[in-house]
Amino acid sequence: MDYSRLFSEDTYSFFRSPVRDIFKRVDLNAIHSFAGGYPSAETFPLDQFKATMCEVIDRYGGKAFQYGATQGVTELREVLSSRYGVPVERIQITSSSQQGIDVCTRILADPGDVILTSDPSYLGALQSFRSYRADVTGVPHEDDPQAFREAYETVIGKLIGQGRKIKFLYMIPDFQNPSGETLSLEERQILVDLARKYGFLIVEDSPYRELRYSGEHLPTIWSLAPDIVLHLGSFSKIFAPGFRLGWIFGHPDVLDKIYVCKQSLDLCPPVFDQYVAAEFMDSGRLDRNLAHSIDLYRSKRDLMLSLLGEYMPEGVSWTRPEGGLFLFLTMPEQFDSVAFYDTALDNGVAYVAGSFFRTDGGGRNTMRLNFSFMSHERIREGIILLAGLLRDELSKLK
Amino acid sequence: MDYSRLFSEDTYSFFRSPVRDIFKRVDLNAIHSFAGGYPSAETFPLDQFKATMCEVIDRYGGKAFQYGATQGVTELREVLSSRYGVPVERIQITSSSQQGIDVCTRILADPGDVILTSDPSYLGALQSFRSYRADVTGVPHEDDPQAFREAYETVIGKLIGQGRKIKFLYMIPDFQNPSGETLSLEERQILVDLARKYGFLIVEDSPYRELRYSGEHLPTIWSLAPDIVLHLGSFSKIFAPGFRLGWIFGHPDVLDKIYVCKQSLDLCPPVFDQYVAAEFMDSGRLDRNLAHSIDLYRSKRDLMLSLLGEYMPEGVSWTRPEGGLFLFLTMPEQFDSVAFYDTALDNGVAYVAGSFFRTDGGGRNTMRLNFSFMSHERIREGIILLAGLLRDELSKLK
Repeated sequence: MDYSRLFSEDTYSFFRSPVRDIFKRVDLNAIHSFAGGYPSAETFPLDQFKATMCEVIDRYGGKAFQYGATQGVTELREVLSSRYGVPVERIQITSSSQQGIDVCTRILADPGDVILTSDPSYLGALQSFRSYRADVTGVPHEDDPQAFREAYETVIGKLIGQGRKIKFLYMIPDFQNPSGETLSLEERQILVDLARKYGFLIVEDSPYRELRYSGEHLPTIWSLAPDIVLHLGSFSKIFAPGFRLGWIFGHPDVLDKIYVCKQSLDLCPPVFDQYVAAEFMDSGRLDRNLAHSIDLYRSKRDLMLSLLGEYMPEGVSWTRPEGGLFLFLTMPEQFDSVAFYDTALDNGVAYVAGSFFRTDGGGRNTMRLNFSFMSHERIREGIILLAGLLRDELSKLK
Repeated sequence: MDYSRLFSEDTYSFFRSPVRDIFKRVDLNAIHSFAGGYPSAETFPLDQFKATMCEVIDRYGGKAFQYGATQGVTELREVLSSRYGVPVERIQITSSSQQGIDVCTRILADPGDVILTSDPSYLGALQSFRSYRADVTGVPHEDDPQAFREAYETVIGKLIGQGRKIKFLYMIPDFQNPSGETLSLEERQILVDLARKYGFLIVEDSPYRELRYSGEHLPTIWSLAPDIVLHLGSFSKIFAPGFRLGWIFGHPDVLDKIYVCKQSLDLCPPVFDQYVAAEFMDSGRLDRNLAHSIDLYRSKRDLMLSLLGEYMPEGVSWTRPEGGLFLFLTMPEQFDSVAFYDTALDNGVAYVAGSFFRTDGGGRNTMRLNFSFMSHERIREGIILLAGLLRDELSKLK
């Protein structure tokens, strides 16, 4: 049977994640993998997970295994409400933060509508945006606030001049994936000003926010303008990704569309997992564990930065993230991280080519490195290995 | 801010589930609820769940809490493969069977495409189909196979004459929701013949299949034509709905589209829950527990059928399901189950009006009753109560 005749138009805009396909190809534990965005398994306190689960079963009984409310179970929304100071009725639980991105796109973007984002940006978001045939327009980050504003004004002005509809701006303001960069308060305020001026929403994706290792916490974009921001949170980096739980803060009029959409998407988020997350937070275990995770990841970040300084050949530069899971390397213009990938993998080291995160396919001389997943020892071995391979490759390009 | 200007076209076809909204309005434990499709909490062996979870944590450690493969964890796909005799590569795990329906619709239906279904049909499926602006065309069930074929041929012929594209036929062949009816082998074969003749797929939704209380198991439609059928399974009725896990069997060319779509939907199904499901099945606990559930539900079905026979006023008829969770009542033409709903709820009994399951809004003289959720005692009280209310109402209509 010729199935292609039956597929929807959207399917022709689907593209597969090169990151997820790497995981199908190699055993992450057998190589030095800087590729994934995985938390370290050291941050999963298995005995506490067991204890929390038993407590949930004893306290809630069968209710923990039934269908649940589409918005998420009340207990979890209440704990989030008091943790983040957001009213319960402005909180929707999602079956992963990725679902948060997807459902926001679903309720907002028609084919041909414009979604603005930083360039580079999160690959999973680009997949979702394109799967709805939205036109994703990337804006490279400018360090000076004036230049930052002008870069967006220029792009927006051009799009509006073409009669295009801008539906939302997607942004990871804290320790961005993939760049590791953080937006200043002034930059956050500029984005809010632009959204108000041109009448679009901001989807603030905030999975790494609580993983800060240095510098000072900045306000969320949500806190600056809760009427025009959809704020996406995730348990994946502060608890465990295997539970597939996240949340959306938003205006009730927008959340209502998301609520109805979620009914037909999957009825409700995983119920038992939600009670476990609520209990893990409410018992204080999450915060105690998070403090350990932050110490662990800080030491890994510091180790990686110091190894990069010690071993990387001339011509390679990198970002210095204040938190999160990633830093971003830039090699000389002639270097091609897509072509180089097989060499690296054959030698036992994996990364993600920077061009995969670009809306325009550019940035082939960049790569994303994760510092959370591997042990200190493997980070050391892996960076020394990668630096040696890059040194050889760059000397050939000269 | 006027958000309506920003919403996608799809959102204007969203409609909210009257069933889910009932759950927001009333405490199910405070009334006699025949409304939901909830399994009985008696079928959740809490101590076995605890034991299984501890075994999973001991066996898999941190892996059970990490991100997992988009297709689902290998261990779960292998257990399903040996249980149902389907190759592992033809199995995609979903974050609920509802997601299975949604993702099939997403990869197949463009706005205006036709989806065929029985009339009445599962409400959550109608929600999903309409949310993509598909044209849902219902075909009432005819008991005689010849009339059954002709009813479909007539509808299909008319649609093709209008130049419409039929993408798939959606069907729950075993103990249908809401009617409780089961398709005969001959009817299953007729649907396969029609799909081959006219070049559409069949989405076979099979959440209740293993809950058979009488009669003989019939082959799945999938087993008759695996190249043109997408078979949806669910753990919700044989294990627990709170884990939000289901599966799709399908041809690899179709599953590949679903796989890429699922990457951007939510990356992967809940990982810990998948290991728990795999362990619960592999240890033999699922089958032992299922045998108890079948005995329990059979006795509830039998009780309800006997109470209906004893207490319902003249002019009310009902289906006699061989399995599943529901039976379907038909009252005289003048009766309106939507209008009657508030009276019933005020008196402490809930059901779902039959017209909510219809593609054409008809069947206002019908209602769906669930017999799995409540205790025997509450079923008895609830049916006697409902019968009394119906008797009063029908006497007024005469």
